[in-house]
Amino acid sequence: MPAMDNFATVDAEVPQPKDGEVLVRTRYLSVDPYMRGRMNDGKSYVAPFAVNEVINGGVVGEVIESRSADFKPGDIVTGQLGWQLYSVARAKELRKVDPNLAPVTTALGVLGMPGLTAYFGLVDIGKPREGETVVVSGAAGAVGMTVCQIAKIKGCRVIGIAGSDEKNEYLEHELWVDRTINYKTAVDMKQALKDACPNGVDIYFDNVGGAVSDAVLPFINQNARVVICGQISLYNLDRPDVGPRPQPYLLVKSALMQGFIITDYASRFAEGVKQLGQWVHEGKMKYAENIVDGFENTPNAFLGLFSGENLGKQLVRVEN
Amino acid sequence: MPAMDNFATVDAEVPQPKDGEVLVRTRYLSVDPYMRGRMNDGKSYVAPFAVNEVINGGVVGEVIESRSADFKPGDIVTGQLGWQLYSVARAKELRKVDPNLAPVTTALGVLGMPGLTAYFGLVDIGKPREGETVVVSGAAGAVGMTVCQIAKIKGCRVIGIAGSDEKNEYLEHELWVDRTINYKTAVDMKQALKDACPNGVDIYFDNVGGAVSDAVLPFINQNARVVICGQISLYNLDRPDVGPRPQPYLLVKSALMQGFIITDYASRFAEGVKQLGQWVHEGKMKYAENIVDGFENTPNAFLGLFSGENLGKQLVRVEN
Repeated sequence: MPAMDNFATVDAEVPQPKDGEVLVRTRYLSVDPYMRGRMNDGKSYVAPFAVNEVINGGVVGEVIESRSADFKPGDIVTGQLGWQLYSVARAKELRKVDPNLAPVTTALGVLGMPGLTAYFGLVDIGKPREGETVVVSGAAGAVGMTVCQIAKIKGCRVIGIAGSDEKNEYLEHELWVDRTINYKTAVDMKQALKDACPNGVDIYFDNVGGAVSDAVLPFINQNARVVICGQISLYNLDRPDVGPRPQPYLLVKSALMQGFIITDYASRFAEGVKQLGQWVHEGKMKYAENIVDGFENTPNAFLGLFSGENLGKQLVRVEN
Repeated sequence: MPAMDNFATVDAEVPQPKDGEVLVRTRYLSVDPYMRGRMNDGKSYVAPFAVNEVINGGVVGEVIESRSADFKPGDIVTGQLGWQLYSVARAKELRKVDPNLAPVTTALGVLGMPGLTAYFGLVDIGKPREGETVVVSGAAGAVGMTVCQIAKIKGCRVIGIAGSDEKNEYLEHELWVDRTINYKTAVDMKQALKDACPNGVDIYFDNVGGAVSDAVLPFINQNARVVICGQISLYNLDRPDVGPRPQPYLLVKSALMQGFIITDYASRFAEGVKQLGQWVHEGKMKYAENIVDGFENTPNAFLGLFSGENLGKQLVRVEN
């Protein structure tokens, strides 16, 4: 588990943009569970962070100075930038955000990476059909709550698993989730799942892994789809993750288990943003944000992801 | 682990066919790993065997008496019949076997259920592409050796994992498998796999599960396909099967793990038999059979599957 002393704040000059580059003042920083993986050395789907280098993640900011014809001062942009007050980026690494369409923070949430992750993971891998049962772990996170709502839009019965009663109340009362389970207080997860899923589980959208998944897998139906989106319960383990192997369940149910990362769908982002934007516009898709104030609180906001503090998208507001 | 005293031989009258039925004299009985699953009580992909009922499995036999226009005495047929000397079956449960096309035993092997399992599992789920690396566990079994050969036909590099040097010699010298690993004598399975798969693993066709799979999964490549065909190492466990969870590997590699059973492909059997038959005819596909003589040795032949005694398809020849 990372701690505050793994982070350091360093003063530096505001960088200067070269030809084709843009200077961006940070407004919002995104902290995401997947970033934990980048703090390990070793091959993974994104290159590891280097020690003593700036941490890199999703940012929404304002263009201060532009040496590209594509941007002018005052434009709101998003991209993968540094955990810093000012960043220089090449124009092609940035995407313009229209603040009139939706709050700019949605570019880091429901209309950004987490929303697209939910959309493609559920629609393309999960392939929900009307009347099916969808179980979502990490249901109150930025990805999970979007998955729950898309599954409802698709006519599914949705069971959300989250770690607090407050989160579960939000899921049931605000997002129309059919049933919720608090994995931290459930006396018997298997019984809770049995009660919640009388017809078994057709899609398990997994953000969490570990013991929660162990409890879900025995309930999968014939031809079930298990979408492996995240495994947040494992990211801080310093030993191999051991548990009941899922292969026997997949075998006897002719079931699929598929891992993915959102960049697999890069060529289809426009389609996803358009559909999600339409649902938000029509009031079919809500989103929640948990915004911490102050650049200096970024590491704490990140660490809070692993104790399950956030309801919805965890962001840091940077005033500077 | 089942033992001889779980089996009983019972004398009975030869049954008489009714209208639309056929009396079949058994020539060959198939014993298959999947039958072990039917010896457990509980929901699985095939209904469990009932205690004190005849065990049911693949049979090749000769029609002795027919009350169906579709068959006449002397016809060679195959179907799911009993472990018995004579069976009565409805005509529609039987398929005619042409003894001039290939030895009749192939209807229980390369041109039957194991061959079709290999074909659809590898081609439809594994989707092999030229130059990819395919690892096959249980490579010297009836399914495994067919998978190895189809993968070679598709232009892949093939690594077979089996439990004896004799089996591995057969795989390398007779079936053109590129490299083999003896999982029983390998000092370090991970090192052996690393040496055998310098470019990682694109397809893992798994008949075995357990520790062998644990060793393979860390080597899967981006977009790898893990075909869960069998888990023979687990069938006789009386406790939950615990090991390193595969989900983290699937996640970081955007990899697929898919279980299946051959009946999922029932509508495409003709396509599979035709293709396999053509490869056999062209000499591109070999097959091995391990034939035990004598009906009374059927339980022993079945039990031998779990100690890895068979090279290729395990059959029992019944002379009666």
